[in-house]
Amino acid sequence: MNIKVPTLLIDEEKCRKNIRKMAEKTFKAKATLRPHFKTHHSATIAGWYRELGVSQCTVSSVSMANYFAGHGWKDITIAFPYNPLESAEINALAGKVNLNILLESNESVIHAKENLENKAGYFVKIDVGTHRTGIDPEDEDLISDVVNACGEKFAFRGFLAHVGHTYGPGTTENSQDIFDQTEKILIPLRKKFGGILSYGDTPSCSMVENLSTYDELRPGNFIFYDWMQHKIGACTIDEVAICMAAPVVAVHPKRKEVIIYGGAVHLSTDFLPTKSGKCFGKVVRLTTNGWDTALIGSVNRLSQEHGIIRLSEKSINDVKFGDTIGVIPIHSCLTADIQGHYLSTNGKRIEKIAKV
Amino acid sequence: MNIKVPTLLIDEEKCRKNIRKMAEKTFKAKATLRPHFKTHHSATIAGWYRELGVSQCTVSSVSMANYFAGHGWKDITIAFPYNPLESAEINALAGKVNLNILLESNESVIHAKENLENKAGYFVKIDVGTHRTGIDPEDEDLISDVVNACGEKFAFRGFLAHVGHTYGPGTTENSQDIFDQTEKILIPLRKKFGGILSYGDTPSCSMVENLSTYDELRPGNFIFYDWMQHKIGACTIDEVAICMAAPVVAVHPKRKEVIIYGGAVHLSTDFLPTKSGKCFGKVVRLTTNGWDTALIGSVNRLSQEHGIIRLSEKSINDVKFGDTIGVIPIHSCLTADIQGHYLSTNGKRIEKIAKV
Repeated sequence: MNIKVPTLLIDEEKCRKNIRKMAEKTFKAKATLRPHFKTHHSATIAGWYRELGVSQCTVSSVSMANYFAGHGWKDITIAFPYNPLESAEINALAGKVNLNILLESNESVIHAKENLENKAGYFVKIDVGTHRTGIDPEDEDLISDVVNACGEKFAFRGFLAHVGHTYGPGTTENSQDIFDQTEKILIPLRKKFGGILSYGDTPSCSMVENLSTYDELRPGNFIFYDWMQHKIGACTIDEVAICMAAPVVAVHPKRKEVIIYGGAVHLSTDFLPTKSGKCFGKVVRLTTNGWDTALIGSVNRLSQEHGIIRLSEKSINDVKFGDTIGVIPIHSCLTADIQGHYLSTNGKRIEKIAKV
Repeated sequence: MNIKVPTLLIDEEKCRKNIRKMAEKTFKAKATLRPHFKTHHSATIAGWYRELGVSQCTVSSVSMANYFAGHGWKDITIAFPYNPLESAEINALAGKVNLNILLESNESVIHAKENLENKAGYFVKIDVGTHRTGIDPEDEDLISDVVNACGEKFAFRGFLAHVGHTYGPGTTENSQDIFDQTEKILIPLRKKFGGILSYGDTPSCSMVENLSTYDELRPGNFIFYDWMQHKIGACTIDEVAICMAAPVVAVHPKRKEVIIYGGAVHLSTDFLPTKSGKCFGKVVRLTTNGWDTALIGSVNRLSQEHGIIRLSEKSINDVKFGDTIGVIPIHSCLTADIQGHYLSTNGKRIEKIAKV
């Protein structure tokens, strides 16, 4: 690998293994896998799902939906509140593919009914405790209003929930609890209104043994995983399929620090708190065809293009000016988003959506 | 302004005013302005500097140097440690423009001497307290070694310092102190070794009255400013020249919250701590040709595409589903970096470097 600048490496084998494992778990649960593609933004990587028979996907923007529709995906859920300002684009897309949108207020239903001519499917988004978007599950009147107002205009798919609060710290123990609570909220809604239950998030889909309550699963991050998922307990360090390769541009042995070309514009500023400060990524050694998963340090500080790495006592004398080393990202979705492309560990350049 | 998706607005008039003010201050100090272009990454915006007679610039990567060289900039400092893995690209660039690199170790000098054929200029980077990169100013032996080893191979420009620690919280009072301490470190070096003193950072260049110690100033952020700079005391809220326009996709009056299409992939995850949590941006109303600077709320939470905004009591009933509202970014450099383009408040699309 001829790396000169910060480059996001992908281990294709690990990705395919992660997909296989989740596909098997979904199959065992008699559910459908509708993976979230906001993690990778790449038609090539989406193809790895397709090879395993996955034909439905989730995205989080209309532009992402358009990109994947242009690459042959015919059944797409936009898991983001209906944006009335993009109704023309949503309508056009609903004329081309099986498109599902999220409705979660009377205003959104009124606007969608007036502005979408092509028949779309819709999910009612339920707030299961994250308090980001969705209808309060106790507000059954509003749920009824939305479903009744849609009538035959749109195809009712069911209820969609995202359990964002499993991403919080210390959730290893809580994951099953949150999962159980969420079941208690959603099952009665399916019973009363019909439709399917669509459930997402990598931590619970990875950690909860039996997912058979749900009809559809929408995890996204699990294809790459990252340091945060490892800390939560959602994956082993060997399952993390993504690593930033970065040149070492300065060595400060007295401070036990090295400086890499690789900063906030390459990794994102997402961090996990540590006893003594912040961790913006874990440091590993690169190998000829990937990286060794033994940790040799942490990215303790970041500026726009610089990463400041504290190395372990054992490693400080091994890392030299001009080496390249690896950084396991804290949150792979954000790190992947700010890259222009990926490099697979078998040397292939992998394209993704361009920011225009 | 026909805005449908998160869009980064630029007020060109405010930018030009910010440039003019800094250019006048630099002129008064009898120094040269070599602005840092990592803030905007745009040849169009760089042109606004050129119209005021600025002909030198600072960048933080070789690719950025290549981009601006391709747009007519002939005198460029790469204010980032010499990356040995890019020596071929650096050498090619040094054959086309007046290029300055940073050297700060014996290893970097040895590598640069062996690998650069074209004559470059160089600065010795001094660590004035940020402890990111640079030579400890007390290590005059190493400084001598670097300067002597370079000999006539490269043109010695002088000493370069970045006072990153003025970005910390509560620095309004400390800015002059840090500035004074830095002078005490750098002036003796110029006396002993010759060359110029190149000094950067927006907080001190904005807040310190008399900058005449320095021969060259390299602030970057001041063209846009942002909420962090305003909190530090570096600018008024009216001087902030950048604002994210974002569609309102859900309204939760009981929680006094609205949800915008505008998340971590649009704003970056940079935040300032608040009494009750985090602030990822300050919320304002958009007007027909820009934004009103009266604050109406804060972005309290962010996920990949969602921003969760807490609005003031007065504003919660005014903001409706389908409106667009404005978010003043915490750190404009990072917000600008993740955008594909800008929209000026007079309706022009402004291009910037594409991520490839």
